[in-house]
Amino acid sequence: MTPWVEALKREHVKPLAAVVWPGDESTLHAVRAAVEAGLIEAVMIGCREQVEREFADLLASGKVSIVDADDSAQASAIAVRLAREGRARLIMKGLVNTDVLLKAVLNKEEGILEPGRVLTHIAIADIPCRDKLLFFTDAAVLPYPTEAQREQQLACVLDVCRAMGLARPRVALIHCTEKVNERHFPFTAHYRELAQRAQAGEWGDCVVDGPFDVKTSCDAHAAAVKGISSELNGSADALIFPDIESGNVFYKTITLFAGATTAGLLCGTRVPVVVPSRGDDMATKFYSIAAACRVAMG
Amino acid sequence: MTPWVEALKREHVKPLAAVVWPGDESTLHAVRAAVEAGLIEAVMIGCREQVEREFADLLASGKVSIVDADDSAQASAIAVRLAREGRARLIMKGLVNTDVLLKAVLNKEEGILEPGRVLTHIAIADIPCRDKLLFFTDAAVLPYPTEAQREQQLACVLDVCRAMGLARPRVALIHCTEKVNERHFPFTAHYRELAQRAQAGEWGDCVVDGPFDVKTSCDAHAAAVKGISSELNGSADALIFPDIESGNVFYKTITLFAGATTAGLLCGTRVPVVVPSRGDDMATKFYSIAAACRVAMG
Repeated sequence: MTPWVEALKREHVKPLAAVVWPGDESTLHAVRAAVEAGLIEAVMIGCREQVEREFADLLASGKVSIVDADDSAQASAIAVRLAREGRARLIMKGLVNTDVLLKAVLNKEEGILEPGRVLTHIAIADIPCRDKLLFFTDAAVLPYPTEAQREQQLACVLDVCRAMGLARPRVALIHCTEKVNERHFPFTAHYRELAQRAQAGEWGDCVVDGPFDVKTSCDAHAAAVKGISSELNGSADALIFPDIESGNVFYKTITLFAGATTAGLLCGTRVPVVVPSRGDDMATKFYSIAAACRVAMG
Repeated sequence: MTPWVEALKREHVKPLAAVVWPGDESTLHAVRAAVEAGLIEAVMIGCREQVEREFADLLASGKVSIVDADDSAQASAIAVRLAREGRARLIMKGLVNTDVLLKAVLNKEEGILEPGRVLTHIAIADIPCRDKLLFFTDAAVLPYPTEAQREQQLACVLDVCRAMGLARPRVALIHCTEKVNERHFPFTAHYRELAQRAQAGEWGDCVVDGPFDVKTSCDAHAAAVKGISSELNGSADALIFPDIESGNVFYKTITLFAGATTAGLLCGTRVPVVVPSRGDDMATKFYSIAAACRVAMG
């Protein structure tokens, strides 16, 4: 994760992060690290006492400010309003139930879901045995994507890859085999269609292909053994999983068994939203803010 | 994988493996290794010329024999018949299309699917950073298990765990969260029911609990952070995945990114069936024969 975070530190503009109800140590630590690294400035919404006690130095420097809120629901609404007004460039969840924050984000009149878009989770993984980052969706939000939702996921993951500097992202559409099977796995027919439309240029400069399994997506040798001929060539930058179960299994497995460092953010909204889960470590929270920051800056 | 394979070598009885159409180097190597390790004796069905050329020593020793067959379909039927007759104690796929072999295995009159059972794939993984084996299902056969099929999977995975010496197998039912959500994920309600029935003793001495994600199933710290109270306690021996997509992602991810060694076999049949895939390495094929051998011996 280091190279792109270092590049980000050298940017002169620090996007403003709206931090919703920052009442827990973990959120405060991650925000402090991101502010001190020069990635963001932050507006802390709610929890004034705790913020004043722990962020005295950052408040004095002007890099952090406070907006009062009565409760986490109001704090969520304020963060979303700041994003609508173009002031906050990213939102970060603190000690607020995810459902409460998402309710404000998805509010039909006052929310920040882009018209015609769907909320989807994009994760970025740095896996020690790989020589490049791996982007994937969706481990956390969309249960069983419809075809329209899958197209949104593809657009989102391409946006994030490009924001991270990939000129020609290589996206694999994941299934348990490499065969299109319309009867038992109808989404594989849609995979084939997406691959064709991508080749025709619908999503700009990129490679989209599938169905492939995780191994033939990410390992040139495995792809060769199976005799697969694809421009993807076992060298995916991004994986689109067929459902939340498989995406979540991937996320948990690489972090638990493969030593992966991850970042995650929600896309499809006017500004990226960082929604850490209780199990995330500090590095994950920090990198998630950094990734949202990178996406916010385009 | 070493300890139980060593124990197996010390057994005096060598179950007979029926090897279907052993026309490829990879199958011949794996069978040779298993015979030489003293795990099995083998009957090679079809491909006489190649077997006579490469297995002259093993044929002379009487540990390997040959039965002729005209083609791989006939070889499949012969292997299944030998299993029905109680002579072959396990079946291994050679250079035969999996569909052809499974057609013989699943044949209503002459096949070997146990009455009322479903064919399911059980994998066994040795993951370097874990201190015990991990059993899981289903990465390869059952697309979206029904409730009845999931109960079969549970029974199968318990059988295999017990054959491998676990007195009280600990089984986690996998989902992307720890919440039962009857509306969007109806199988999670069934998970809860299975946990209750297991606690009531329906499957003998074992722990079955869920829904849990991969992390809270396999990591005591992650389970503690989420405040989960379960006898499973982040220390699962076995994982039951909600669908083939998530099972397959787990399988491919631990082998590709976590250095796992795996074995796999099909259960629900009168004898275990080993169906290696083209991408499997020699170790996987050898351990799969060994695992089938262990299961065959009960």
